[in-house]
Amino acid sequence: MEPAINYCCTCAAPVSLRVPQGDSLPRHVCDVCGAIHYRNPRMVVGALPLWEDRILLCRRAIEPRHGYWTLPSGFMENQETIAEAAARETREEACADIELDDLYTMISVPHINQVHLVFRARLLKAEFAPGEESLEVALFDEASIPWDEIAFRTIAITLRHFFADRAAGRFGFHVEAIAPPR
Amino acid sequence: MEPAINYCCTCAAPVSLRVPQGDSLPRHVCDVCGAIHYRNPRMVVGALPLWEDRILLCRRAIEPRHGYWTLPSGFMENQETIAEAAARETREEACADIELDDLYTMISVPHINQVHLVFRARLLKAEFAPGEESLEVALFDEASIPWDEIAFRTIAITLRHFFADRAAGRFGFHVEAIAPPR
Repeated sequence: MEPAINYCCTCAAPVSLRVPQGDSLPRHVCDVCGAIHYRNPRMVVGALPLWEDRILLCRRAIEPRHGYWTLPSGFMENQETIAEAAARETREEACADIELDDLYTMISVPHINQVHLVFRARLLKAEFAPGEESLEVALFDEASIPWDEIAFRTIAITLRHFFADRAAGRFGFHVEAIAPPR
Repeated sequence: MEPAINYCCTCAAPVSLRVPQGDSLPRHVCDVCGAIHYRNPRMVVGALPLWEDRILLCRRAIEPRHGYWTLPSGFMENQETIAEAAARETREEACADIELDDLYTMISVPHINQVHLVFRARLLKAEFAPGEESLEVALFDEASIPWDEIAFRTIAITLRHFFADRAAGRFGFHVEAIAPPR
């Protein structure tokens, strides 16, 4: 959850929630300096790194979903590109260097204000290790994917697309959206 | 430019710029309540709406680039998908309804902490008009595109891809990044 906006981060005066002139949605507007504090969706960018026919997964050492498996991915940072974000997250979480292939899935998750992106990628060497945010890093073939212990629905969707596309002999680019779980 | 972070937006105490435990980059952290105020890239989402062989462009009524031409596009909002953002921006800026085709370009602009996305799209009717943020809305064929008056480089790149792909008879998906202008 993002911190609540009660005060202006620039001048510390109280803010009001109102529709600025020329806008159509309520924003947090500073009553004193007039600064408008927008909130927008964030990108979570990752990679699906292959070594031969196996996929690198990381077991999460942090919340949410501590102990569950995921593809290396995380929040995109300012001053980087989406490709740089995917490579950085893979280095940080799996201590692995990759070569990126095409962008593969882009899944909007509007109820949590996120968009999840995954690139297909290849490990440059069969060398990897848990980074600070991982308990364990390992390669999985299709039969051994721990489907009941995948951390996030967008990751499970991406893995399912990968196996289906690989079986079909053609990798598409998948743009989707998911609703809240019931 | 985003407002400077000098104070905590939750409790109004001063913030320090420091690397939180387990993190690798400096963040604005509240000295009193401990809230971490992240800043991340924003998505600017738009459409390339076609009517027959012509493209809908909007002349901007707002800064930056007042008076210059652009595809309908703008900041993605919380609680929406990328497809909903593209359709909403087209309604707001061009009073036009579209049917989205595939996502077409995704261009990282790291020096301004943005990622620009454009969908190909078709106008449902030849009905459009300037919204509040547009001076003028019009259809352009390839020969009449006002290349010297296009508002943003990512829009010019998208238009050039479109004409090249159309001539080649095949529309790809283009993932790129641009550096600051010299």
